[in-house]
Amino acid sequence: MERTSYRLADIVARFGGRVQGDAETTVIQVGALDSAQAGHLAFLASGKYRAQLTATRAAAIILGEADAGATVLPRIVCDNPYAYFAKVSAFLNPAAQLSPGIHPSAAIGEGTHIHPTAHIGPHVVIGAGTRIGARCAIMAGCSIGADVTIGEEARLYPRVVVYHDCALGNRLIAHSGAVIGADGFGMAMDEGRWLKIPQIGRVVIGDDVEIGANTTIDRGALDDTVIEDGVKLDNQIQVAHNVRIGAHTAIAGCVGIAGSTTIGRYCRIGGSAGILGHLSIADHVEISSFTLVGKSIREAGSYTGIFPFSANEEWRKNAAHLRHLDELADKVKMLQQEVEILKGKNR
Amino acid sequence: MERTSYRLADIVARFGGRVQGDAETTVIQVGALDSAQAGHLAFLASGKYRAQLTATRAAAIILGEADAGATVLPRIVCDNPYAYFAKVSAFLNPAAQLSPGIHPSAAIGEGTHIHPTAHIGPHVVIGAGTRIGARCAIMAGCSIGADVTIGEEARLYPRVVVYHDCALGNRLIAHSGAVIGADGFGMAMDEGRWLKIPQIGRVVIGDDVEIGANTTIDRGALDDTVIEDGVKLDNQIQVAHNVRIGAHTAIAGCVGIAGSTTIGRYCRIGGSAGILGHLSIADHVEISSFTLVGKSIREAGSYTGIFPFSANEEWRKNAAHLRHLDELADKVKMLQQEVEILKGKNR
Amino acid sequence: MERTSYRLADIVARFGGRVQGDAETTVIQVGALDSAQAGHLAFLASGKYRAQLTATRAAAIILGEADAGATVLPRIVCDNPYAYFAKVSAFLNPAAQLSPGIHPSAAIGEGTHIHPTAHIGPHVVIGAGTRIGARCAIMAGCSIGADVTIGEEARLYPRVVVYHDCALGNRLIAHSGAVIGADGFGMAMDEGRWLKIPQIGRVVIGDDVEIGANTTIDRGALDDTVIEDGVKLDNQIQVAHNVRIGAHTAIAGCVGIAGSTTIGRYCRIGGSAGILGHLSIADHVEISSFTLVGKSIREAGSYTGIFPFSANEEWRKNAAHLRHLDELADKVKMLQQEVEILKGKNR
Repeated sequence: MERTSYRLADIVARFGGRVQGDAETTVIQVGALDSAQAGHLAFLASGKYRAQLTATRAAAIILGEADAGATVLPRIVCDNPYAYFAKVSAFLNPAAQLSPGIHPSAAIGEGTHIHPTAHIGPHVVIGAGTRIGARCAIMAGCSIGADVTIGEEARLYPRVVVYHDCALGNRLIAHSGAVIGADGFGMAMDEGRWLKIPQIGRVVIGDDVEIGANTTIDRGALDDTVIEDGVKLDNQIQVAHNVRIGAHTAIAGCVGIAGSTTIGRYCRIGGSAGILGHLSIADHVEISSFTLVGKSIREAGSYTGIFPFSANEEWRKNAAHLRHLDELADKVKMLQQEVEILKGKNR
Repeated sequence: MERTSYRLADIVARFGGRVQGDAETTVIQVGALDSAQAGHLAFLASGKYRAQLTATRAAAIILGEADAGATVLPRIVCDNPYAYFAKVSAFLNPAAQLSPGIHPSAAIGEGTHIHPTAHIGPHVVIGAGTRIGARCAIMAGCSIGADVTIGEEARLYPRVVVYHDCALGNRLIAHSGAVIGADGFGMAMDEGRWLKIPQIGRVVIGDDVEIGANTTIDRGALDDTVIEDGVKLDNQIQVAHNVRIGAHTAIAGCVGIAGSTTIGRYCRIGGSAGILGHLSIADHVEISSFTLVGKSIREAGSYTGIFPFSANEEWRKNAAHLRHLDELADKVKMLQQEVEILKGKNR
Repeated sequence: MERTSYRLADIVARFGGRVQGDAETTVIQVGALDSAQAGHLAFLASGKYRAQLTATRAAAIILGEADAGATVLPRIVCDNPYAYFAKVSAFLNPAAQLSPGIHPSAAIGEGTHIHPTAHIGPHVVIGAGTRIGARCAIMAGCSIGADVTIGEEARLYPRVVVYHDCALGNRLIAHSGAVIGADGFGMAMDEGRWLKIPQIGRVVIGDDVEIGANTTIDRGALDDTVIEDGVKLDNQIQVAHNVRIGAHTAIAGCVGIAGSTTIGRYCRIGGSAGILGHLSIADHVEISSFTLVGKSIREAGSYTGIFPFSANEEWRKNAAHLRHLDELADKVKMLQQEVEILKGKNR
């Protein structure tokens, strides 16, 4: 593909900031400092990567005011270099446009409302009564149930499944293998057998949400499962029934969130973390990777519960004591008492 | 959809229990105590939610004998309110019936036996020699390998994959993205390269099993992987080759079970737990979320191994000592000896 | 299926080793010692299973020199019994051959190069410009993006998704639900909203790689995500953007690897382990199941960080002290000082 080149002057005219050095310098693509090639525009998001400035082959750099003097290369100085880079990269790398229309192999139910600007790929199935908004791309092999609503400009990559009745917002991005609206895990024990509890809630997803590959979001048992605006979910996350995730919260891969838990806004949850059910997590909470949250968190802040790894033999020796920690604490208490007595005798 | 309404009298006639209050009260749907609307039948499964009875807008309540006097609303008094609710909900919310017949876009192999009452959706693929029982629903885009057997009334949601030779029981529910019968992870190291070990066992699944979205169950290496009757698996569970899961065991999301492990009947395994390979877990064992089971469990009971989370700085201080727990225990032992000596001198 | 039978003499002629006992003994299939049937060839990979030799119904055994005298059954004596078994099993159980050609329901983009010996199954979608090598099998419902390259003899099981531009090597096996090349999880916070960072790198996969069911491998942000030759990935693994996995490393199910981490060659990573981002793991490192690796590992060896499980009440008592381990360590230090003083006084 022939790429268009842009002058730094063009870029600051569009995105703000100021050029230091030759504003006629042209760039065709973004790159990382350490692997950028000729014609690439790299970025310095943090002072700790300053050392990479000397060896970079980038044509120009996006950086902050504090680092403006750290290179002689042509540069764009701005307030938030990483966000600036995101904007430039989105401009240089727009998502592929897919042609409007319905592929002849798609199976479309009765009474659907598919906007004429939407792209419906091969082997897509769309259930009766479903509405697909303008400029949506529903790619190969997606299966959308009956009576689903999808807003405008949503992109569903190949083989996404959406069950019946779910409501998805504008500009949703859902990656391949995501399953939205499958039954929550609800059942009652009755004389030695599990009875299934029908899951009659929906999944309701706000605007500007991204859902990673093979992530699953279950429909609510009675009420809805809700993903608010701007939530970003990585791959292989499991969101159980009746969970609510607050706006602009970002969750890394492999996290599991049990049923009926409410997570606040602007939270950040590390990979493979877990959150038990029926809890409430405040806004602006950060949870470390691999941490299980077993009770509600009422205050913003960072929370962690990780067993530190070590060489196997060392771990074995140390971990053995964990099963006897209560005894160890008792021994220390006893020693304290005994030493107090001895101190009395020796006074 | 126009919903039918039922009198409480109709419901107890069908499901047992007794009405207290106006038996002519009608309900059209089930609901949760705190979000029920007019015409909803809510339930009180545990006395700890009694406080919600005062504010509920439900038309009537299902509850147990002990709570029969806790509300003046019309109510159904029964032995197991949650199971009762499950039955009523299933009655009011039957699974959507799919029309019998094979969609013209489905690709059907030679020598298949597909019951005429079965529904085969668009873009389904069914391999040669496969048998599909009466009233099954194999939904859009499922791929069923050759020589598979599926019992009666199974529901495979869109994009389930079943590999060749597997045998699935009656009333199986498999949610989207489930993969049944992929190769187990078996290989032998030979002169610096891994040799693949053909996985020639099957997956054999009993009756009344439910399998969550994106859950994977590998075929056996030599013998079969077996899921017994009534097992309930949530989303994103990984069941490795030659595992056996006992009847009526329920496993929450994101659990991983390594190869050749046998799990008993009526076990309950919490989300994101793990079980190592070649172990044996007794009947009626409960395993907490996020717990790794590293050795066999011979006795029924509850087992846990969770690192408790805390504020990040606090965790950091405490966790640092884990790498030196063995030394700490040694110090305590030494102190005990020294204190004994001192006590002797001070006697 | 009619199976061919082979004499032990035929097998050693093909794969080496020597027969002890009757070389005319015929076998038709491989089996496990404890479940082998008549006509099965079993193997003894480790002396600890010797006891199973007495009861086995196998026709013959593959074993090592050290165990050659441990049975009177006809046997093949060789250097590496497990690898030998793998070879014999692969010979007796070749992967099903799929007929060359493109199924009429497949949707093939413009400018593709699909080798005439390749099998393209029903409902497959192949994007423009993509190249598929000789003897590949792209099974039902796979979706391959534009400008992808796939080497020779690759097997993609039903419903694998490969995004645009990725490059996959020879003899790749990818199981159902695997997603290769979805966007990495990259975004920048800008005035209270997340901006998506286009993921413009690829996934590049070497030769002889196997990828398990529902495993996800994200494309690189700027540079590529790389899986080197001979890597074996089990099910439900998440590989984030810009990870590099060294040749012949084997990773068990449910592992999560965060962005930009480099893993060495010949590593073995246990199930449900996690590795944080931007780390470097040396060659020949073993990581235990359920262990989070939170910093780089520079030396070969085994590493572990598992919280040992116990009966729930016992765990509760012990775990309570973890939140006060720092205080406990302080108390011990204090006691040591006090005891020293007392010892001085009692000298």
